[in-house]
Amino acid sequence: QALDYDTIENELHGEEERKMSSSDWKWIQFQRWIICMLIGIMTGIVAVVINICILELTAVKMHVVEQAIIHCVKNRCLYVPLLLWIAINVVLVTVASLLTVFVAPVAAGSGIPQIKCFLNGVKVPNVVRFKTLVTKVIGVIASVSGGLAVGKEGPMIHSGSVLAAGISQGRSISFNLNTRFFKHFRNDREKRDFVCAGAAAGVSAAFGAPVGGVLFSLEEAASFWNQALTWRIFLCSILSSYTLNFFMSIYHHHPGDLAYPGLINFGKFSGSYEGFELPIFLLMAVFGGLSGAAFNAINHKITVFRLKYLKAKYFKVLEVVFVAAVSATIAFVLIYWNPECKPLGQDPYVRLQFFCNDGEYNTMAVLFFTPPEESVKSLFHDPLGALQPLTIVIFVLPYFFLACWTYGLQVPSGLFIPSLLIGAAWGRLVGNCVNFIWPDDIWAQDLSKYALIGAAAQLGGTVRMTISLTVILIEATGNITYSLPLMAVLLLAKWVGDYFNHGIYDMHIHLNKVPILPWEPPALSTNIQAREVMGTPVVTLRTVPLVSDICSVLSDPRNCHSGYPITDSEGKFRGVILRTQLLILLKHKEFVERGGSSERIKLSVFRDSYPRYFPLSVINVSEGEQQCHVDLRPFLNPSPYTIQENASLPRIFRLFRALGLRHLVVLNDEYKVVGMISRKDIWKWEHKEKQHDD
Amino acid sequence: QALDYDTIENELHGEEERKMSSSDWKWIQFQRWIICMLIGIMTGIVAVVINICILELTAVKMHVVEQAIIHCVKNRCLYVPLLLWIAINVVLVTVASLLTVFVAPVAAGSGIPQIKCFLNGVKVPNVVRFKTLVTKVIGVIASVSGGLAVGKEGPMIHSGSVLAAGISQGRSISFNLNTRFFKHFRNDREKRDFVCAGAAAGVSAAFGAPVGGVLFSLEEAASFWNQALTWRIFLCSILSSYTLNFFMSIYHHHPGDLAYPGLINFGKFSGSYEGFELPIFLLMAVFGGLSGAAFNAINHKITVFRLKYLKAKYFKVLEVVFVAAVSATIAFVLIYWNPECKPLGQDPYVRLQFFCNDGEYNTMAVLFFTPPEESVKSLFHDPLGALQPLTIVIFVLPYFFLACWTYGLQVPSGLFIPSLLIGAAWGRLVGNCVNFIWPDDIWAQDLSKYALIGAAAQLGGTVRMTISLTVILIEATGNITYSLPLMAVLLLAKWVGDYFNHGIYDMHIHLNKVPILPWEPPALSTNIQAREVMGTPVVTLRTVPLVSDICSVLSDPRNCHSGYPITDSEGKFRGVILRTQLLILLKHKEFVERGGSSERIKLSVFRDSYPRYFPLSVINVSEGEQQCHVDLRPFLNPSPYTIQENASLPRIFRLFRALGLRHLVVLNDEYKVVGMISRKDIWKWEHKEKQHDD
Repeated sequence: QALDYDTIENELHGEEERKMSSSDWKWIQFQRWIICMLIGIMTGIVAVVINICILELTAVKMHVVEQAIIHCVKNRCLYVPLLLWIAINVVLVTVASLLTVFVAPVAAGSGIPQIKCFLNGVKVPNVVRFKTLVTKVIGVIASVSGGLAVGKEGPMIHSGSVLAAGISQGRSISFNLNTRFFKHFRNDREKRDFVCAGAAAGVSAAFGAPVGGVLFSLEEAASFWNQALTWRIFLCSILSSYTLNFFMSIYHHHPGDLAYPGLINFGKFSGSYEGFELPIFLLMAVFGGLSGAAFNAINHKITVFRLKYLKAKYFKVLEVVFVAAVSATIAFVLIYWNPECKPLGQDPYVRLQFFCNDGEYNTMAVLFFTPPEESVKSLFHDPLGALQPLTIVIFVLPYFFLACWTYGLQVPSGLFIPSLLIGAAWGRLVGNCVNFIWPDDIWAQDLSKYALIGAAAQLGGTVRMTISLTVILIEATGNITYSLPLMAVLLLAKWVGDYFNHGIYDMHIHLNKVPILPWEPPALSTNIQAREVMGTPVVTLRTVPLVSDICSVLSDPRNCHSGYPITDSEGKFRGVILRTQLLILLKHKEFVERGGSSERIKLSVFRDSYPRYFPLSVINVSEGEQQCHVDLRPFLNPSPYTIQENASLPRIFRLFRALGLRHLVVLNDEYKVVGMISRKDIWKWEHKEKQHDD
Repeated sequence: QALDYDTIENELHGEEERKMSSSDWKWIQFQRWIICMLIGIMTGIVAVVINICILELTAVKMHVVEQAIIHCVKNRCLYVPLLLWIAINVVLVTVASLLTVFVAPVAAGSGIPQIKCFLNGVKVPNVVRFKTLVTKVIGVIASVSGGLAVGKEGPMIHSGSVLAAGISQGRSISFNLNTRFFKHFRNDREKRDFVCAGAAAGVSAAFGAPVGGVLFSLEEAASFWNQALTWRIFLCSILSSYTLNFFMSIYHHHPGDLAYPGLINFGKFSGSYEGFELPIFLLMAVFGGLSGAAFNAINHKITVFRLKYLKAKYFKVLEVVFVAAVSATIAFVLIYWNPECKPLGQDPYVRLQFFCNDGEYNTMAVLFFTPPEESVKSLFHDPLGALQPLTIVIFVLPYFFLACWTYGLQVPSGLFIPSLLIGAAWGRLVGNCVNFIWPDDIWAQDLSKYALIGAAAQLGGTVRMTISLTVILIEATGNITYSLPLMAVLLLAKWVGDYFNHGIYDMHIHLNKVPILPWEPPALSTNIQAREVMGTPVVTLRTVPLVSDICSVLSDPRNCHSGYPITDSEGKFRGVILRTQLLILLKHKEFVERGGSSERIKLSVFRDSYPRYFPLSVINVSEGEQQCHVDLRPFLNPSPYTIQENASLPRIFRLFRALGLRHLVVLNDEYKVVGMISRKDIWKWEHKEKQHDD
């Protein structure tokens, strides 16, 4: 199923517009701005809630386990804190996975692939429902606090999108709430614009990167750049970031300090780099690409296994519980096994004594036990001797596999932070090597730049995102100095990774067989014509068909298209009507014989039914009514985009991609319908070609 | 005239692609990357040349005038340095204006409006010619060194675009040079992609803002986001910035220090701001919007005056000379009149004694005499007491009017630096006021943030650019801390300014009556149908017309369209052929009677003729040949985008905007041509409506 990003310009629409005055129109424009502002503020508030809950829960958990350890080191009962730790994690994570599995499975993972699909025009069921938001929010709090190797940033993007979809409709079907507001925006096209803004607000809140947020939306929405829309998305982004900052500055007891935005900030990067360090950075980019590709390959195997064997719901929950227990055990063992202890005070935040002597803290515990954002910061900024290379090696290897295993579990889980953590860890190791080779040079004293480049390379090699990711990293770093090496590294890491496999989001989209359209038409396809791609024969309807005809068209499962071409008595093309429109006309019994056009069905009826339409089975059409006629002419879209049979595939592709179409009618030179092309047809064609090549 | 961003998918094209192997295709892709890298590097080098020339010329000029002043303060001959100064400025500026007026008038101004038009699809004559580049480079060096109130950043964007257009074609018609390379890219569509990259490289070199550059291109090009293209633009941007940095770091004797990019950098902003300063910033944004609107309004009056009365070429040169002399005189008088002297050493760069005692320097001379980039930096970063408020007031008022008068003169001249300078000046004044009101608070000691916000507000109020400008400013500041207030200020300044008039670039585009398409379809135009907008009757040709028919169509000035629909004997639409294609067919005498199709004209012939076609008059067609036929079928585009007569204006608009079309054929339901819509038709319709409203 696909979303429809084209406007239905039928008679009803034209009539409404004729009645509209210039000030009505301005009022609608104004509403758009209001909605975007609301989306920004609400997204910021949700981010605050998630953030504070995680901070508090983690602090409580840390305190409990630490007390138990202190008690048990003396009394030789170390299994108690381990079991306690496992128990806490398992309880939290079970909440997350139960919600995800039984309430909203679409809330699993980071949500970025789902939002990508939505903005691309693919209908993902429930993706912007309220219950998804609730699952996402509670789930991400539980899974991050539960010690899984996940981040909260990706889910923020999804949460922002759901909020946007909800607010822009001015109603909630879940709560049976329907306000008078924002009725104009109840269609796929308008909703998408707001979801763009919501996704941007999510990025902005997650990384304190408003510009990165705008770019993320543009990159994924991929329609043509609309300046007014971009401005609104921008405002929404700014407000989201401001709101989060405002509340977090109060929480941190320095109200008004708005300079450090975002759920994660990378701390202050004050250093700089020398020109001759670039080759080192580029080598790191190659390694990041390889490491990211390896991550994706392993995750691919795991995901395929999951799709095949872990179909039952309770299996899914059990797997999550198992991973949580394993994560806790590994962390505990490593903390116990590698008690590299440092004197307290190097970092005012850190008090994790664990198995260390009084007045010392355990470095491994810092990596495993603090919120992952803090661990990233430690890896970035701890001074040269603060972390032994061996500690980092022992930490990063198991964490890599844990993260790999975790992504794809049935819990909301972001991928950014684990990737940054892994990358920062090996980047710091590279820094240690450099420092070992050139021990006396000042430039080699600063490990933070290597950790940053490593983090970027790993993240770029895994997700293969582009411009927006660069901007996000630059904004999170708060330092423009590194923009050039960051870009170069992300570019190279993407190239290296792309040589082996797809980015992890695209990989998951492919595994789910979602008909997402790529960025460009297939290579060398100019000689492929519409007639080779189109679906045929096409089911058409007359301009004033019998109710029985409509019913038989709608009920035939082979005709489960989103729209049907309308032809007149000569067979000439007259327009397109959507399946959902037909359903509404039948339900409201808009039959000619009942005096149809005099008291015609209103545009608001169509708007109110959006977006959850009913199946044909709920409509009762009596025997007598089957012989009535429905006058489709006021409702059909009389001039949709059409294409000739001999149009080339790249041309069709550009139309689909640039205008966000759902279907395209193919006409011959008699102006008769010869076929329909849906996005699935294009996708299938490409897919077939690829299999052919293999 | 318009550019054609649609591909001609005729038989020749299809044949070529059939012969192409997958590796040929990859080779073409690879060439794109190579070209983009070359564009980036070359743009960087041109920026280096411009920058070094200006620095050296300014230094020489400053030295000469200073020596004369030192000599004349003793000997009471102050008219000598004044005249000397005027003379130097006038000579330099005359070079710039002579080149501009007589060689390439399109090189006048910043070039941003021209590039905007080009990317929008409007053909601006000579905009990407080599002579334009030469004029631009020499002209901007001369006019900046010549002491006009102009910057060199806008012209960099134009220079990058010209370089891109030149390099991507693999030849130079001016030099009669034609390499074997890059033949595939000889059409409007491919060229535009590279010009996008060039413009981005220009921004990147000018401001050290690679991300801002990419956004600038996307914002102006406004087609749908193509990811591979964006990556290439990005690489090009990075390389341009790197190249510039690399050479400038050598010039500044610290090779390898790549941390400060760009022709202008704003210096290090280390401070932060408090939440309660936001209202002050927002008030400043309002003032910036007002001030920018005033700037545009005054410039509008001056430009209208110029268009009316200063038509003769020598008038134009004279005006430039006059402005240069006035600029020098005002600067000299102000420096003389306001000898606020400060002890040397506060700024190692400044040695401008002028009328001060030994061991002191003249603050006004710093503002007027150093390169304007340095003045901006002084205003940003000089400590609290370094510049008296009175000095700033006396400086900014005349400078505002000078800048206003200068923009639109017949010299290459950027607007960014003057705007930043004006804004930083009044921003600093605001800072002084704040400091006066709250003298004891630490946050009020830091004037640099007020200067920055003032600069942003003034620039935003003048050019009304959006996302890209924000990112450019953030990148130039090198500090993410200010991103939120900068965005808010730019947004508000734009809103305030838009209440009064258009942005200055759009204003100049409107004054030149360029049919540029806006971002969105006109409001409430769904009920306007294609048949009301289209041009009619349409001149059509048959599939195999007589040569005499073609000649008469081409020679009739009323039919000066860019393309002609082709119909068959029944009158059915068969495709579109371009005027330029017809000219080439006639010139190569591709007549059926001469055995046409056996040794058919090659695609390369069409490519070689691009982009400078010849007029009909150079083609000799004998009396006998007039009765020959031309088989157009292999050459016509058989399936261009078409639209039905009842399609709505927003729908047409979206097609034009998203796909970069030049013309659209309107068909009726018999598949016969009833009209053609060109971008000018849409523009005219909007224009008419507007006049109607007024």
